[in-house]
Formats: sequence, C-alpha cells, structure tokens
Amino acid sequence: MTITSGEQRVAKRRARTEKPTEPKPESPGNDWSFWPTYDSASLGFRNYWYPLMWAEQIGDKPVPVTLLGEKIMLIRDGDDIRALHDRCPHRGVPLSLGRRQYEGTISCPYHGWTYKLDSGKMCAALTDGPSSPINNKISVRTYPVEQRLGLVWVYVGDGEAPPVERDIPAELIENDFAVGGRWDIRQGNWRFAAENGFDEGHAKYLHNTALWRLFKVMPAWNETRIVEEDSWLIRVQDAVHWEADFPGLGKWTNKRWYKRMPLPDAPGKAEDINPVIKSLDIPGFVSIRLPGLLRVAYPHFIHYEWYVPVDEDNVRYVQLMVRFEKGLKAAAFKAKYLGAIRWLFHGQFTAQDAWMVDVMDAPPEKLYRPDLSLTAWRRHIEKVAPVAQQDPTVRVIK
Amino acid sequence: MTITSGEQRVAKRRARTEKPTEPKPESPGNDWSFWPTYDSASLGFRNYWYPLMWAEQIGDKPVPVTLLGEKIMLIRDGDDIRALHDRCPHRGVPLSLGRRQYEGTISCPYHGWTYKLDSGKMCAALTDGPSSPINNKISVRTYPVEQRLGLVWVYVGDGEAPPVERDIPAELIENDFAVGGRWDIRQGNWRFAAENGFDEGHAKYLHNTALWRLFKVMPAWNETRIVEEDSWLIRVQDAVHWEADFPGLGKWTNKRWYKRMPLPDAPGKAEDINPVIKSLDIPGFVSIRLPGLLRVAYPHFIHYEWYVPVDEDNVRYVQLMVRFEKGLKAAAFKAKYLGAIRWLFHGQFTAQDAWMVDVMDAPPEKLYRPDLSLTAWRRHIEKVAPVAQQDPTVRVIK
Amino acid sequence: MTITSGEQRVAKRRARTEKPTEPKPESPGNDWSFWPTYDSASLGFRNYWYPLMWAEQIGDKPVPVTLLGEKIMLIRDGDDIRALHDRCPHRGVPLSLGRRQYEGTISCPYHGWTYKLDSGKMCAALTDGPSSPINNKISVRTYPVEQRLGLVWVYVGDGEAPPVERDIPAELIENDFAVGGRWDIRQGNWRFAAENGFDEGHAKYLHNTALWRLFKVMPAWNETRIVEEDSWLIRVQDAVHWEADFPGLGKWTNKRWYKRMPLPDAPGKAEDINPVIKSLDIPGFVSIRLPGLLRVAYPHFIHYEWYVPVDEDNVRYVQLMVRFEKGLKAAAFKAKYLGAIRWLFHGQFTAQDAWMVDVMDAPPEKLYRPDLSLTAWRRHIEKVAPVAQQDPTVRVIK
Repeated sequence: MTITSGEQRVAKRRARTEKPTEPKPESPGNDWSFWPTYDSASLGFRNYWYPLMWAEQIGDKPVPVTLLGEKIMLIRDGDDIRALHDRCPHRGVPLSLGRRQYEGTISCPYHGWTYKLDSGKMCAALTDGPSSPINNKISVRTYPVEQRLGLVWVYVGDGEAPPVERDIPAELIENDFAVGGRWDIRQGNWRFAAENGFDEGHAKYLHNTALWRLFKVMPAWNETRIVEEDSWLIRVQDAVHWEADFPGLGKWTNKRWYKRMPLPDAPGKAEDINPVIKSLDIPGFVSIRLPGLLRVAYPHFIHYEWYVPVDEDNVRYVQLMVRFEKGLKAAAFKAKYLGAIRWLFHGQFTAQDAWMVDVMDAPPEKLYRPDLSLTAWRRHIEKVAPVAQQDPTVRVIK
Repeated sequence: MTITSGEQRVAKRRARTEKPTEPKPESPGNDWSFWPTYDSASLGFRNYWYPLMWAEQIGDKPVPVTLLGEKIMLIRDGDDIRALHDRCPHRGVPLSLGRRQYEGTISCPYHGWTYKLDSGKMCAALTDGPSSPINNKISVRTYPVEQRLGLVWVYVGDGEAPPVERDIPAELIENDFAVGGRWDIRQGNWRFAAENGFDEGHAKYLHNTALWRLFKVMPAWNETRIVEEDSWLIRVQDAVHWEADFPGLGKWTNKRWYKRMPLPDAPGKAEDINPVIKSLDIPGFVSIRLPGLLRVAYPHFIHYEWYVPVDEDNVRYVQLMVRFEKGLKAAAFKAKYLGAIRWLFHGQFTAQDAWMVDVMDAPPEKLYRPDLSLTAWRRHIEKVAPVAQQDPTVRVIK
Repeated sequence: MTITSGEQRVAKRRARTEKPTEPKPESPGNDWSFWPTYDSASLGFRNYWYPLMWAEQIGDKPVPVTLLGEKIMLIRDGDDIRALHDRCPHRGVPLSLGRRQYEGTISCPYHGWTYKLDSGKMCAALTDGPSSPINNKISVRTYPVEQRLGLVWVYVGDGEAPPVERDIPAELIENDFAVGGRWDIRQGNWRFAAENGFDEGHAKYLHNTALWRLFKVMPAWNETRIVEEDSWLIRVQDAVHWEADFPGLGKWTNKRWYKRMPLPDAPGKAEDINPVIKSLDIPGFVSIRLPGLLRVAYPHFIHYEWYVPVDEDNVRYVQLMVRFEKGLKAAAFKAKYLGAIRWLFHGQFTAQDAWMVDVMDAPPEKLYRPDLSLTAWRRHIEKVAPVAQQDPTVRVIK
C-alpha cells in the first residue's frame, strides 16, 4: 500500500530526515487519518453535480433540501428549476416558507424581501418601498440546476460549473433506455453508504438471505482485484468460489438444489449481452466513481446508485435501474421494474444495506483481504478529490 | 449610530491610541457583539417584575415554572401567592413535587424537609425529629410575588424589590378597564419575540394574510422614526404609503375593494378616541419598554404583550387586550374579546409571529431601513439595562 | 469525619507544608470531590460480578445488554450462557444482530465473520474463504458468566475472575430458599439508586404513603449508627421514635388506629425469627455492600436489591425476595410473592424510590444527621474500591 498524494509523499520524505513533531499514521485502523482527505469529507466533495429527486416532483411550491450540509430550496420557474440558498440574509428565515408574490420571484414570508429566482438578486424589499436603499443591493446564492434522466441535478461548487454531462455516465447520455428508480433519505454518513456499495465482501453474506437472490446462487468467496479505468474503479474477479470448507466448522456455500448459477460476474463474459453494455467493455461487475456513484452492470441491465451527502448523519440514496432498449422491450422492462425490481432489489435488497450503514460504527476498524476495494476507493479519493476541489472541470488525474 | 455605554466609549477611545489586541466590531451584522449587553442577555434581565400566569390558576397544588432560567414553584397560601426556589437544598428534589404537611408550609416529598412558604425557612426536617440540628438553619430562596391585573407577578433580582407598579404601565393602575388575555410558552429566545413585536416591517407582509386584517387595509410601507419618552421607545410614522410600484415587478398594495382604510396609525390622531388613551398622548401606534413589554395602542383599546424569558430557547408570551370602560361597554368588550379578539388577534394573528420567532436564525443578519426599530431597541438596552442591573429601583437613565 | 485513603492523607499532609496550587475540599457539599473515588465512579466499579436478568430469558437469540457502559451480547450455548463484546472489530456492527451459522458460534450479519462463543476467537471470515489470512488471528473480548439464583451473572474486570460466590451473600449459597423477584432498567445513575436504598431518612416520609405500609406504622425518626461487619455496612438503630412534636407545626407521626406496630427494626430482636436469618446475627435492618447490593432483613424473609450500572444515566435494578423455607412453606411464600409482594413491595413501594432517583439533582447537596448512612457508604468506597480495582480477588480491606 503506497500513499499517492504528493503532499503526503513530501511529508513522508521529510519525516525520514527531520525529527517529527507528530507521528504519521503508518497503517489504517484506529482512525482514518491515514486518508486525510477522505477523513475530513464527512459532508462530501464540492465541485460536483448531484442528483436530488425527480424533476416532476418540483412544482410552484418551494421544496427545501439539504445537500453537502447546505440548505437549498428548489422551485419550478416555467420549464426551469431554480435552486437558491434557503435562508433570507435579513433575519435568517427560510425562503422555502415564502410566497410567490410576483412571477419569477420568491418573497420571504417575514418582511417580503423579494428575490429573482434566476439570479438570486433581491429586487424589492416590499415593506420598505421602491426607494429602499437595499433594493438590488444584495443576493442569495443560487446553484446551477439541470434536468437529466428525469432527475434534478444541482451543482455545489466554486467557480464556473462544468457541464452536467461530466458527472453522468456517458452511456446514459448517448443511448436510449428505459429506466425505473427511487430515492430516499437514509441514516448514516455518505461514506459508509458508498463503502457498503463498493464493498466486495458483504453481498455474499448479508444479501444471501435477500429475496432478490432466492433462485440464484451467491458466491462463497472471491479473489478480487481493483482496476482504474476512465475515472471508474472497477472490481475485477480473478476467481469465484462457490463453496468453501472451514476446518472445524463445515461447508460454506449458498448453493441450493432450487437455485441456478448466476450469470457471469463480469458482463463482458456473458454470451447473451446487450450491445450497449457489451460496448462498455467493463472488466467487472461493480464500479464506483466520484463523487459517489456506483454502477452494477448485468448483461442486460445496469443498476446505478448515488450516495448524495445530506449532512454528516444522513445520505440521499438515489437508485436507477436502466435497460438499453426501445419500444416493446422497454415497456416490458418498465412493467418488470414496477412489478418486481422496485420491491425486491430497490426495496428489500438495498434495505439490508441501509440497515448495515445505520448500525455500522467505524473507525476503529480491522480490515480483511476483500476490503482492498475500500482502501482502493479511499486512496483514489486522496489522489483525485483534492485536484477536483481546486479545478471543477477536472475529474480525474491519471 | 453611536455607542452609548461609557465602558464602550472608553474602549473605542483607547483603540485609537493603543495597538488593539482584538478588533472591536464597528457595525452590526455577523454577530451581536456590537451590542454586548444585549448579546449576553439570552436569559433576560434581572431586577424586574414579570407576569407569569393568571392568579386564579395558582391553588394549593404547587405549580412549577421557569423564569430567567430559574426553577420556581408557585403556590397559594391563603390570599397570598408564594414563590420558592423549586429545589430542596438537601438532595435537589423539586419542592413542587412536595406535600402540604402543615398549614403555611411545603414538605419535600423525599425526606420531609419542611419549608415555611412565606420565608423559605426550613423549620423541620421531619425525619430527623425536633432535635435535628439543621432545623431552622437553612432556607430556600423566596421571590417577591404580587397579584395585579389578575396576573401573578414575580420579581427576579438582587436586593430590595421595587414596587410592582414600577413595572406596570401607569394607565393600567390608575384607571378602570375591561381586560381579556391569554398566555402561552412559545419556542424561541425572548429577544426574537421582542424584536418581532417592535419590528416595523413585518406586519405589512407577514400579517397581510391575517384574518384580523381581512377587512382593513395594511400599509405598503412607512417612513418611521423612533422616539424615547418616559421609558418607552415609540415608533412614530412620518408617512404611511398605501401603494407602491416596483419597477419590473408591479404594484404592491394591500388595498382591496372590500377593505376599509384603517384608523389612524397613532391613536392621538383619531377623532373618536377613548379619553384615557387620548390622555396618554402617545405619538405612535407601537411602543416597547424594558424588560420586554410591547404596547399597541388603538383609539379604543390597547394591546399589551410581555416577552417573559423562560430559558434560552423558550419565551412566555403574555397577551392582554384592555378597554378603558366600565359597566355595559366593558361587558360588551368582554363578549367581543371572547367571541373574536381572542381567536383572531391573540390567536391566529400572533401565531404568525410565533412561527417567525421559531424559524428565525440570526445573527448573522443584514438589516434594512425599517430595522431602525431593532437597533434603537438594542441601543436603548445598552444604555438602560446595565444601570438597572445594579440598582433595581432605577428603570431609565435619560 | 476522617479521610481514609492513603493517597489523600499524604495529600493533606503535603498541603500543610507546601504552598498548595489547588485547595482541597475540606467538607462535602457543592460537589463530590471530597470522595474522589466515588465521584469518578459514574459507571460503577470493575472487578465485580453483576446480576443482569433471569438465566431462562437467554436463549439462542442474542440479547444485547449494557453493563458499566460496555456493550455486551448474551447468548445461550447449550447449558452455558456466553457473553461477548457486542461489536465486530471489522466494521463495528453489533454481533447481537448476527446469525448462528454454525454450532457454538455467532456470525456478524455483515460479512460473516464468525466467532467462537466460548473463546471469542474469530475462526472464519466466511466471505474470504478458508485461506483468509485473518482467520483465527483476532478475537472479541469475552466476559466470565455464571448462573446462580436463577440469574445470569457477568464479571467485568481485568485479570482472572474470582469465584462468583465472592459477590453473592453467603446465606444465599449455603441454604435452601424460595425466591421471587423482578428486574428493570430505571433512569438515574446507579449511585443515586444505591444511596436511596441505604438512606436512613427517606422511608419514613416518602414511603409512609406506600400501600405496603398501609397497616403497619412507620417511625417518625430514628437515632442511627453505621457499623461495618464482614464487608457489609449496617444501619443500627439506637432509638426509634414513633411520634414527634415540632414547635409551631404540630405532631408528626405515622401512627393510626388501624395500623399495628411493626416487627422489631433489627431481625435479631424479634422473638419469632427464621433460624437462618437468626444465625446471620445482623445488628440492623438494612445493610449495603459493594459493588451495590442492599439487604433488608425482616425476621422471616430478606429483600435484596442490586444497583447494576448500565451507563451514566441508567441503572439496572434487580430485586429478590427470599424466604429460607422448603416444601409447603416455600410454596406458600411463592404464592404470596406473586399475589402481593411483587405488586406492593417490588412494585409500588420501590417505584417511589425510582421516582426520587429520577428527579434527584445533586450535588450540590446539604446533608443532615440521618445522612451519616450516605457518608459512611462513600467513605467505605474510598477505602475499599481502590484496592478491589487493583486485585479482583480482594473484596474488603479491614
């Protein structure tokens, strides 16, 4: 395990020649100071686009949300959706409690300070008349908003926002598809949710009781490697073991007479594979990328989930199931989603994950071999996130 | 805006000639250190009388209350009401859970330490017999109590209490009147409740949806001045504007065909005016004074509200509506109060204020022209409160 | 009152000859620094056995408990009950949420880390296969467990545990008896529960309204002495007063025409006394000993109650009522327990104590003569507990 950020390398070099004032952690365990960027990212990373909810859920009535710890109100303004800091600078009343006094504006319910939805400019302090010296002098912060995949995307960052397409997987922009999904606010920090998603080990134990896997065998254990490809970290299985014998305990397997073996673990290995998914040429089943997006690629559909930081203790969990089809096949998928996938996979299966994220209490932690997925993810963040924080148009440093 | 306290003036003078160790705030905004006395008064001001509840609500069963952060029990003792610190010094059990073992006393439920209600003296530790060395050796603190206007008044302060009349508006002592009222505990610090009450700007926006104003026009904006007169700060309207045009937005007015223009904004300007109210000769509609009493004077009745500090996060809100009449007119007013004013004004109207006090989140704050009422109130406190804290018989320093 | 711990004596001697940097408290009152060991024992004392619940309440499903602030899971393993630290070292998931994958083990629900119940050894990380380098390399802490008197006893301590019999009154080991009991978690720190139990004064006031005493007179006040005997502190009554006259107040007595005088206050003084209880030769009615066990000895039965620290704010309250009889008399007692004692004594009577422990708020405190029972208990702890903390096999230093 090597430390990748330049700053840390310098720190280590110095530590060899200078008398250190504070010992640097040399291995993970009791805390996360081994990954200082990650350790301090309890509110997530700025300079990214985040999906929040379905665009059609935003109407004329303001919707308050919390994103990366910031209070934001979303509101519809014709075809556009606007995002404003949800706090009147006057006396701190949430603008999401306000009234739509004039077209294209929101007025604070307290004193009628009226803000343009597009610019955030306070254009009229109604209760001080047109001559009020404060009119047009102050603003609330606005946030870039886009609508894609039926979702509202908000950018929290500094400087110019990059195109939202930078933060959406390319296959979802370049292809037609049918999609089903759901979102909810879950307890626990976003990092635990993301680690749980990319975690190699837990699915084979926690989820082997999931209804979603009732008729499909889960592996007993895998040999795994993490590769980085085009901003994604990908879990590649070098070997999958379906049975294991533990001396003194007995056999460990998920095989049952009524279960069939699953499709290959990497979508590219399947014989029958959707051409779009085939073209992605992903070497593994599960991938993750910043700022917290997981992709689980099956031969015929892909599941995406976003871990959107709300605050230190809550995460917005946005799930999409995508099938790259048109016409009848797309309609059939929509029906299957509503009838089964939504309840089994996006429901009971991922509720098991929510349960673990809620009860988990780390660090301290004691990692094991499959946790290389976690440490790779943390190292990746140490390398990539500090650069992205400085330059919002950069996503990955190779 | 000038700083009024002598201590601050000295500090400013020094700051010009000495190298400052800490910069003094030069303007309001991010915090309230500009008004240091006010900033630190989250529990209110000592050395004042405060109304708590209706005297008839206090019976033989002790009633626990919190006032300026102090736990107090109220109890009836014949015609008198007594107030004792609600904590047995022995082991900290609230005396308000106690028993009335003997006339004129309260006994802690735990070990029967028995206190005289009038003096707070512990006259008998029942479970240690008449020979107990502690008998008559210790006391709990008592608080001066008075009954006026049907309310219980308690003095929290140091030294001799001044007459309760000092802290009750003179017109309520010298005249006959009919009165209706209610009190409740509301969320939010007392200072926000008081500022909301004296705030010039909000009524014209927040309350223009109140049922109380359904048939009466609210102004669009005013030109206001604050004058100090006989310990009151009074909002004087130099001009009232009923309509406004905001370029790019449109007209702003509360005028409707079914609303009539309200009575004059200062009671003295009305032609038909109650003689008592006329004699007060108040130059404005709304006044405030320490320790947190608002007076809203209409030509025919006056509304009073007290912001009584409970603790840092709660305020006791005592509202009275007074009509200076006797006989039939007084009875008619009582009926009108119970049938309408209680629900419309002391109910839905001031519930809008409670809502704002609850959601408000300042400082930081960004003030505008009408907020001169707030800054005048804060400056007034900087000037008056420190003196009152030292000498409870002094109310105002001119 | 003298200070007993050697360390404190040294400190006092030093204080006389050296210029003190911090004044030592010379008397109790505003805080408990006068009893430093006791003051810091908010989580109780380690190196003792504690009863937790009925042994038959522990089955194959893990039961999470908190004891002295430590999270522990209890689980049945054949005839044995096992206690493990309730936290998987991997990622902090409670093992009490786990599955019994193999006989004699518990598996963490998240990744299937599998622990031997008897040793706590992690014998298989199921999801990393038999070759996982971590197998058999780590453990969770286990706690010694015993089953006595129908209860589960857990030892929290360092080093080798002494026999559980050390911490159980000898009479309960050497004799046959019938027993009834109940346990519950109550609000308040264990020290307040223990002090309430040994407190001489409160019963005569707080409990004189208890149904349990409906037909038996309570004393008015007593003259009390505390003696130490075989690790117990015992309250000895030198005089019991049934009536008192308080000048200016009146008479204070619990005597009523329908109440009979109670049995003698020390069991040994009774004429008709159970031979086992007689043989104990206890000079007083109520005794206490570390780590928090109260014994109330009547001529024909003994009530025991344990104050088991849960965390700083909660105490596990375990009550037993014991009659040293066999056969029919034992059966009759069981019936009486279920029909009356359970509801009157272990119910309404001790619920009055729970109420006081909940509302009590000390220090500061102002003690009176009967509180010599409290100060004796605190002094005893200063003397005994520090030694017991170092050597778990020692209980009492004479």
